[in-house]
Amino acid sequence: MRNIKLVIEYDGTNYHGWQIQPNAVSIQETIEDRLQKITQEEIRLIAAGRTDAGVHAIEQVANFSTKSQLDLSNIQRGLNSMLPPDIVIKEISDAEQDFHARYSAKNKIYRYVILNRRFPSPLYRNFSWFMPFKLNIKEMKEAAQCLIGEHDFSSFKASRCNSNNPIREVYGISIDKDTKGFIIFEIEANAFLKQMARNIVGTLADVGKGKIGVSEFEEILRAKDRKKAGITAPPQGLFLVKIKY
Amino acid sequence: MRNIKLVIEYDGTNYHGWQIQPNAVSIQETIEDRLQKITQEEIRLIAAGRTDAGVHAIEQVANFSTKSQLDLSNIQRGLNSMLPPDIVIKEISDAEQDFHARYSAKNKIYRYVILNRRFPSPLYRNFSWFMPFKLNIKEMKEAAQCLIGEHDFSSFKASRCNSNNPIREVYGISIDKDTKGFIIFEIEANAFLKQMARNIVGTLADVGKGKIGVSEFEEILRAKDRKKAGITAPPQGLFLVKIKY
Repeated sequence: MRNIKLVIEYDGTNYHGWQIQPNAVSIQETIEDRLQKITQEEIRLIAAGRTDAGVHAIEQVANFSTKSQLDLSNIQRGLNSMLPPDIVIKEISDAEQDFHARYSAKNKIYRYVILNRRFPSPLYRNFSWFMPFKLNIKEMKEAAQCLIGEHDFSSFKASRCNSNNPIREVYGISIDKDTKGFIIFEIEANAFLKQMARNIVGTLADVGKGKIGVSEFEEILRAKDRKKAGITAPPQGLFLVKIKY
Repeated sequence: MRNIKLVIEYDGTNYHGWQIQPNAVSIQETIEDRLQKITQEEIRLIAAGRTDAGVHAIEQVANFSTKSQLDLSNIQRGLNSMLPPDIVIKEISDAEQDFHARYSAKNKIYRYVILNRRFPSPLYRNFSWFMPFKLNIKEMKEAAQCLIGEHDFSSFKASRCNSNNPIREVYGISIDKDTKGFIIFEIEANAFLKQMARNIVGTLADVGKGKIGVSEFEEILRAKDRKKAGITAPPQGLFLVKIKY
């Protein structure tokens, strides 16, 4: 069996997330369906990050096993010609037998984009969270510092997150505002709990608005209680940027 | 009568351009329809640039006459709440009686985005022209220099352009490639003939590909003959950026 690795970019707007589910179109299903046509085999894709509905990927990584002896470039060309234009296979390669897109991942980087200006943007409406309130970037940056390191992130996990272990290590978080009103969050961690990035951003936005203070943000992290944190930032501002192996 | 000026951002993907036409949804019609509901009057919008189907605007400018005495902020709020999310009124103001969005315009800036990399981008598919070929930026820049100044741009006007006067003055053209493979063209001129920006970019792309040389590009301009120039770059890469008055 070959173990083939894909690097995938997608616009998540029209999908119910990565993972296959009944009665909804997923990215996984859309790609598996084309892979099955190409290989004439039942294919199961393993992805590094199971992005939610509406979340995008700049470089999602997935792998699959196949007996097919087709050329990699033929598989890639075939997939890209059959896939809808909101999903593109950017890279394809033969991986080691034990490569597992999720378990082999060392670090993941997610980006979150807030559009902070008076009026919403038609051009970025599917790629940002529109917030007309004034946000204090300095306070948000200060609050975010406590996330760095190994912590129990229970306060920032989705209520229906089924991970047994809420400990994750955050390597870095940057928050920058550009001249056009975009506030870009980038978070690098060994792994993320379900909706962790969006819950962190939603709660940091409360810091930016002055609704909670820097020390209160840290208390929320220490509380290990989802009910203490802020809202889940909406999916369309989130991008899976990179998986490091 | 009041003369009200609007600054409008839109994602042109789902519209048949700015201008009202039978059997197709235009941006003009979409806004006029809401304005009529708000003012209870027949409204006619005049726009600075009549963008084609699929072309976007960061700051389109339009004006209209009305007897309505409604507050500007109420008109703006009403419009934005009724408009679909791909059109937003960013600014509204009372203009001088003789202000005409098109005839009063001094300069216009258009931006064109080429995505120059191996594979197309799902995230930018509606906002760029995908070109996998290697493009020589230096040659394109050199060729573009001849456009600066007052010229007869007949070679770059649409065949169905009904302007009597093909003379336009180009104040500047910049071409820059970023690290992500985006090549950004920005052209400032007193006005543009129909499809002039897209025909210039389409022909400059031929220079970038080495299909025509720098001196040949200049000959095309001098020929005043649309048949000599290259293809019309597709609409989704074009943005009306700014109108100066």
